[in-house]
Amino acid sequence: MMIAIRKLDSAAPSFKAQLDAVLAFEASEDEAIDRAAAGILADVKARGDAAVLDYTNRFDKLDAASVAGLEIGKQELQAALSGLAPARRDALQTAADRVRAYHERQKRECGSDGFTYTEADGTVLGQKVTPLDRVGIYVPGGKAAYPSSVLMNAIPAKVAGVQEIIMVVPTPAGVKNELVLAAAAIAGVDRVFTIGGAQAVGALAHGTATIPQVDKIVGPGNAYVAAAKRRVFGIVGIDMIAGPSEILVICDGSTDPDWVAMDLFSQAEHDELAQSILLCPDAGYIARVEESINRQLPGMPRKEVIQTSLVNRGALVKVRDMEEACDIANAIAAEHLEISADNPQRWADRIRHAGAIFLGRFTSESLGDYCAGPNHVLPTSRTARFSSPLGVYDFQKRSSLIHVSEAGARTLGRIAAELAYGEGLQAHAGSAEYRFK
Amino acid sequence: MMIAIRKLDSAAPSFKAQLDAVLAFEASEDEAIDRAAAGILADVKARGDAAVLDYTNRFDKLDAASVAGLEIGKQELQAALSGLAPARRDALQTAADRVRAYHERQKRECGSDGFTYTEADGTVLGQKVTPLDRVGIYVPGGKAAYPSSVLMNAIPAKVAGVQEIIMVVPTPAGVKNELVLAAAAIAGVDRVFTIGGAQAVGALAHGTATIPQVDKIVGPGNAYVAAAKRRVFGIVGIDMIAGPSEILVICDGSTDPDWVAMDLFSQAEHDELAQSILLCPDAGYIARVEESINRQLPGMPRKEVIQTSLVNRGALVKVRDMEEACDIANAIAAEHLEISADNPQRWADRIRHAGAIFLGRFTSESLGDYCAGPNHVLPTSRTARFSSPLGVYDFQKRSSLIHVSEAGARTLGRIAAELAYGEGLQAHAGSAEYRFK
Repeated sequence: MMIAIRKLDSAAPSFKAQLDAVLAFEASEDEAIDRAAAGILADVKARGDAAVLDYTNRFDKLDAASVAGLEIGKQELQAALSGLAPARRDALQTAADRVRAYHERQKRECGSDGFTYTEADGTVLGQKVTPLDRVGIYVPGGKAAYPSSVLMNAIPAKVAGVQEIIMVVPTPAGVKNELVLAAAAIAGVDRVFTIGGAQAVGALAHGTATIPQVDKIVGPGNAYVAAAKRRVFGIVGIDMIAGPSEILVICDGSTDPDWVAMDLFSQAEHDELAQSILLCPDAGYIARVEESINRQLPGMPRKEVIQTSLVNRGALVKVRDMEEACDIANAIAAEHLEISADNPQRWADRIRHAGAIFLGRFTSESLGDYCAGPNHVLPTSRTARFSSPLGVYDFQKRSSLIHVSEAGARTLGRIAAELAYGEGLQAHAGSAEYRFK
Repeated sequence: MMIAIRKLDSAAPSFKAQLDAVLAFEASEDEAIDRAAAGILADVKARGDAAVLDYTNRFDKLDAASVAGLEIGKQELQAALSGLAPARRDALQTAADRVRAYHERQKRECGSDGFTYTEADGTVLGQKVTPLDRVGIYVPGGKAAYPSSVLMNAIPAKVAGVQEIIMVVPTPAGVKNELVLAAAAIAGVDRVFTIGGAQAVGALAHGTATIPQVDKIVGPGNAYVAAAKRRVFGIVGIDMIAGPSEILVICDGSTDPDWVAMDLFSQAEHDELAQSILLCPDAGYIARVEESINRQLPGMPRKEVIQTSLVNRGALVKVRDMEEACDIANAIAAEHLEISADNPQRWADRIRHAGAIFLGRFTSESLGDYCAGPNHVLPTSRTARFSSPLGVYDFQKRSSLIHVSEAGARTLGRIAAELAYGEGLQAHAGSAEYRFK
């Protein structure tokens, strides 16, 4: 079997148009889904627990008598953890420890202590950093429920100092995912409710008698969840709305082609819409990767998904040289960027836009998904041009500090009054002038 | 004249409900405005310059022949600056210098250098921080055009290292605001186009033949601009959608009541929907502030706006003590919080949620609006629970760095493979295993 994966050459006159066509992806905004989510949110806001219970029993085919009955106690979370096979439990624990260590480092390095400084006249300026009080984590039910996502969303919040983490996870037909519950126990999630969909987003955003209102909602979900999150943005904070997963591999042509082929598969297996692209200056190497793709594909359990993804959204791109590969990578601004090359730091220094950069031949992207330490929640769909991996900073916020001395009130007051009169705001001017007149 | 400003007492059984009623504010989401904005965005995306020109000529009553003709050159910006009265020019320059100094400090303190660290087996983990390439700043036309806002939006972007700042500002009937153009010159804005509304947002988000695509759009605008920004979020980054301005004053009862009354006016004069609230443990002092409000109001040029704001959305609140005032302030999470008291730091230490904290009797909020240094773009409508002042960090983003050593690929690979099998992702497992098998 030979699959028709697209091959492009950056020297072709039509290359830019071809690449744009490969990258083009528009999240379909379904008006019907958006209206349905809006209706559910309004109902949850108005009726609280009663609405959450109705939708949960209906959509997830449950017969709970109360929202309180949908809570999973800490004991059950601990039991899920104890029930895991030891190798899996150890792997989950080690992954959690490494994710925590990285985010603790990030907390120290990202200005979490705030700052103040004193000017010559005694005026003190600065910034105070505070954790959010309470955060909601949405975890999808069913197949897309990844325990690693529980760790990646909950641990940075804990490290930031969030006092309470409320997790919601739907359990269609009552089926619970023990790995997800175990991950919640390891990550230190405080409360878990088996609710999902727009009704869970509404409960977290507005609060109900049973479910406390949170300050921010993070975590991936289906189209209803995404629509509901967009709508509650402003009442609570939200993380980015994630698009399909992406990998971009820059290879100098010296990595085992089987490794690179498998790295491309590892994104493609997520989802038919996932995107895997290889950039390489060596046409012979690209041919070897293509051969490897075709040879290895039949052995993959998720081969249909991989094939659809590679054929519809993948590409093998011959570039002029590694410098051009870096330029193209900046234009693509991929979620995951592998630099599978000698002296990878040299090329990483040229990269301005990527969610995470995996350097060197031994750093498969999948290590980052689970246990390297940095977060696996990353900007997709070119949003790495302006946004960042989920981090401790997403669970903190800043307040400016301004303490003007009596002398400072005189010098600053004159400036402020002058500009306030220029803007026609006399009370602003008067308020400044009182302090020095 | 006695205005009917609301007086509340935290000891009253109905206090919480009364306070909630005062705070309640829902941004009206007008479906007609949202649909109109969506139509304009789609047209700008499809027709580019031609659509921008049509809407600008129609809505702003211009007769420009091309979008290029709507650009204001650097020479005209410099001329606007040179044309200012010297006192005003100096005030604007000093304000800009102070805003720049604060944000340079913020850049140094907020982890802008990124970090890396090396583990025992040689694996390197870290984070790279990069500025956004290009940013768009929306500046409203007409009365709401504040030169201080140009400084507050453009300077942090410049300090962050953004390469190009594109400012858009509508000029209805061709009227330009010289102070705004002068502020653009001082702040180092690179290009200015006299366009506004949803068409300007669309041009910045999608790019046209004349107007370059940006990576993020910041700055306040009317309902059409806000709707358009919400819709392009994801294609570009956006800042918060700002609500009405708010001030909360905590006073121990020893500040000149005229000062506090004028501070309340300074928010109220912005807008009928602005909110001014005083918390004080001293009923006698509250009466003196109320007397001062009524005495000073008739002398204010914007007295109608102030009165409407104070009557509809203001409150003078008697609290039990300063500790309770801090608790209430945390629940309100105000945009601007003044702590007008002895030893204000003692009370600031208790504050978890506020956009900016103004400490001490000499720190009028208006100093922060213009020239203290910290940003005046602050979270409103209780969003200080989860968001921050505009800052250098809004114009930077982070990329994770992962460089796993050969030894690290073995230990991490085993963990990743174990968890990948648990999630049913065999290519993830295979990709990790290739590196150690």
